[in-house]
Amino acid sequence: MSLKSMDDLFLHLVKDIYYAEKQILKALPKMAKNAETDEPKAAFETHREQTQGQIERLEQIFELLGKPARGVPCEAINGIIEESNEIMEDFAESPALDAGILSSAQAVEHYENTRYGTLKTWAQQLGLSEVVTLLDQTLQEEKETDELLTRLAEARVNAEAA
Amino acid sequence: MSLKSMDDLFLHLVKDIYYAEKQILKALPKMAKNAETDEPKAAFETHREQTQGQIERLEQIFELLGKPARGVPCEAINGIIEESNEIMEDFAESPALDAGILSSAQAVEHYENTRYGTLKTWAQQLGLSEVVTLLDQTLQEEKETDELLTRLAEARVNAEAA
Repeated sequence: MSLKSMDDLFLHLVKDIYYAEKQILKALPKMAKNAETDEPKAAFETHREQTQGQIERLEQIFELLGKPARGVPCEAINGIIEESNEIMEDFAESPALDAGILSSAQAVEHYENTRYGTLKTWAQQLGLSEVVTLLDQTLQEEKETDELLTRLAEARVNAEAA
Repeated sequence: MSLKSMDDLFLHLVKDIYYAEKQILKALPKMAKNAETDEPKAAFETHREQTQGQIERLEQIFELLGKPARGVPCEAINGIIEESNEIMEDFAESPALDAGILSSAQAVEHYENTRYGTLKTWAQQLGLSEVVTLLDQTLQEEKETDELLTRLAEARVNAEAA
C-alpha cells in the first residue's frame, strides 16, 4: 500500500461531505413537514434548495479533481440525522417541537461549516484555486443559513419572554 | 404519556452533551498520542483537561435541575469519533495524518459549540440564570479551543507554502 498523501485526505473529505449533503437533502423535507411554525418550515425548504446547489458544486469539484463523484458513508451526519428523527418522534405534539428541530438543523449546519472550512484550508494548501472559489460560495451560503437558524432559535425565546 | 415540555427538551440535551463529553474525554488521549507534531498534541492534552472541567460543570447543572447526572447515547458524537479513528488508521504514517486529526478535533469542537449554544438559549428562555453562567464558562473555553485549532490547521498551510 502506498503512503497516503494530502491529496488522498482531501478527496476523502470531499467524498464524506458529498455523502453527508445527500443525506441532508433527504432529511430536510421531513424537518420542514414536521415543523409547526412557518418560519422554520420556510428555512428548511430554502436550505433544501441550497443543498441541491451545494451537491452540484461538489460534483464540479470531483470533475476538477478528475475523479468520479462518489460518497463514503459519514457516520457523523448519520448520527446527527438519527438524533433529529428521535426528537421529532419524542416531541411530536409538544410545544417544544420546533425548538428541538431547530437545534438539530443547527447541528447539521455546524457540521457542514467545519467540513467546508477544513476543505477550503486544504484546497488553498494544495493550490486548487478553482476549488477554493466553489467552496467559498458554499461557505457563504452556510454562514447565512447558520445566522438565520440562530435568529429563529433566539426569536422563539424573545417571543416567549414578551 | 404526558405532553413533553421545554424542560424535558432541555434535560434531554444536557444528557446528550454529558454523554458526548465523556466520549470526548476518552477520545482525546488517543488523538494526542497519534498526533505527530507537538502543537496539536499539546492542544489535545489541554482540551482533555478542559473537558474534565466541563463534565463537572454539567454535573453542577444536573444538581441545579434536581436530576441525577446521567447521559443518553449521542449518535452524533459517536459518528464523529468513529470517523476520527478511521482517519488515524487510514493515514497512519502519512504526512497528512496531523491535518486529518486536526479536522476531526474541529468537528468535535463545532458539535460542542452548537450544543452549548442551544443550551444557553434554552436556559435563558427557562430563566435558569445559574445554569446560563455555567454554560457561558464552557462556551468561552470552547470558543478559545476552536480558535486554537483553526490557527494550528492554518499554520500548517502557511508552513508548507513558505
